[in-house]
Amino acid sequence: MKHQHPHPEEHLTSSAMLQDIVIGLSDGLTVPFALAAGLSGAVDSSGLVITAGLAEIVAGSIAMGLGGYLAGRTEVEHYQAELAREYREVAEVPHVERAEVDELLAEMGLSPATRAQAVAELTADPDQWVRFMMKYELGLEKPDPQQARKSALTIGLAYALGGLVPLTAYFFTATPREGLLWSAVITLLCLLVFGYLKSRLTGQPPVLGALRMAGIGALAAGAAFLVARWIGG
Amino acid sequence: MKHQHPHPEEHLTSSAMLQDIVIGLSDGLTVPFALAAGLSGAVDSSGLVITAGLAEIVAGSIAMGLGGYLAGRTEVEHYQAELAREYREVAEVPHVERAEVDELLAEMGLSPATRAQAVAELTADPDQWVRFMMKYELGLEKPDPQQARKSALTIGLAYALGGLVPLTAYFFTATPREGLLWSAVITLLCLLVFGYLKSRLTGQPPVLGALRMAGIGALAAGAAFLVARWIGG
Repeated sequence: MKHQHPHPEEHLTSSAMLQDIVIGLSDGLTVPFALAAGLSGAVDSSGLVITAGLAEIVAGSIAMGLGGYLAGRTEVEHYQAELAREYREVAEVPHVERAEVDELLAEMGLSPATRAQAVAELTADPDQWVRFMMKYELGLEKPDPQQARKSALTIGLAYALGGLVPLTAYFFTATPREGLLWSAVITLLCLLVFGYLKSRLTGQPPVLGALRMAGIGALAAGAAFLVARWIGG
Repeated sequence: MKHQHPHPEEHLTSSAMLQDIVIGLSDGLTVPFALAAGLSGAVDSSGLVITAGLAEIVAGSIAMGLGGYLAGRTEVEHYQAELAREYREVAEVPHVERAEVDELLAEMGLSPATRAQAVAELTADPDQWVRFMMKYELGLEKPDPQQARKSALTIGLAYALGGLVPLTAYFFTATPREGLLWSAVITLLCLLVFGYLKSRLTGQPPVLGALRMAGIGALAAGAAFLVARWIGG
């Protein structure tokens, strides 16, 4: 959800989108499922479970979508602020910045002689110098300014889509308990498939990933069920 | 939520914890608030709003906490898998890896002569060579293996704490509508303060950050209210 690694430029767009889908689906499949399961233990009306579930989906997809938007905007603003600062420092305190380049190269493991040569080359052109500092001192890549809007939409839609899965069961069953049974079957199957595919994508053991994802959903739903029954039932 | 930048080693622990608190509080202050607001528009019992709200808090903090745990574990496993692969490649296809080092140095802007010297130095020791590839080719820093467990706890607790704020109002008021009024006042104030502090921490304009955060909460709550009333009321 929050551990993003730099990707090669050409994979950036599709990776960012897949990652946003994974973020939205992970929470969308679990939280509304668990809330509906919890309420099933405390109320007698399927309509109430559906109302609360849909309110949760709306709340969650807006909060998560706009949260993703803000994170993306912050990243763009942070990059621009740091870029301006590096240009200023390169112009105003070049000896300090030159020492920083030398230090970074020393950390890589270069000898003093090679470093002297490399520092001279890297600091010859201000644009290249600043690009080097941004990437290797600060670990910042130029973010796509459109990414924030795309992320907001993708995360929000994925959350809503994931959240509708567990709710559908309650539309077609007479009592919340019956709805819960079908909801659990459908949602845990989806979580297994989703966990499997997600782990395949990230190169993790897929069966373990499937079980972990379904385990989180089952645990969240079970805990919500017990708490709601204890309080409301 | 998900745009993490590498930090200097000495700030890592406190930054990671603060970041987890921000993740948990952002969603914890908005989603349970919006769900409770939504239900206030559809049901007549404060008890029901509290039951649903607590079920949501339990579901959300488990789903988000364990989600943070899985993300942390995945990061550790990913790092170890890549580390093993780099050691294998350095031993089995050193000429390919040497060409990759050369390419990375060319991207930085070094001349062929300096690169030849630097490549020889960086690839002299396998450990240093692999460390260079991990950090500069893959952008991976060695993750703290304890981080996953710490993240899970911090995110889960912050979500629960944030979620209890909007619910407290419903304990002390007679009707859900009255509860909603107080809940909105208390939660929007908390979101303003939280957004202000969060923006201060990340070096963003704090007043804008405060307004953005409160805006997300208000929007999510308003939308959930309308949807729940339309369906359930």
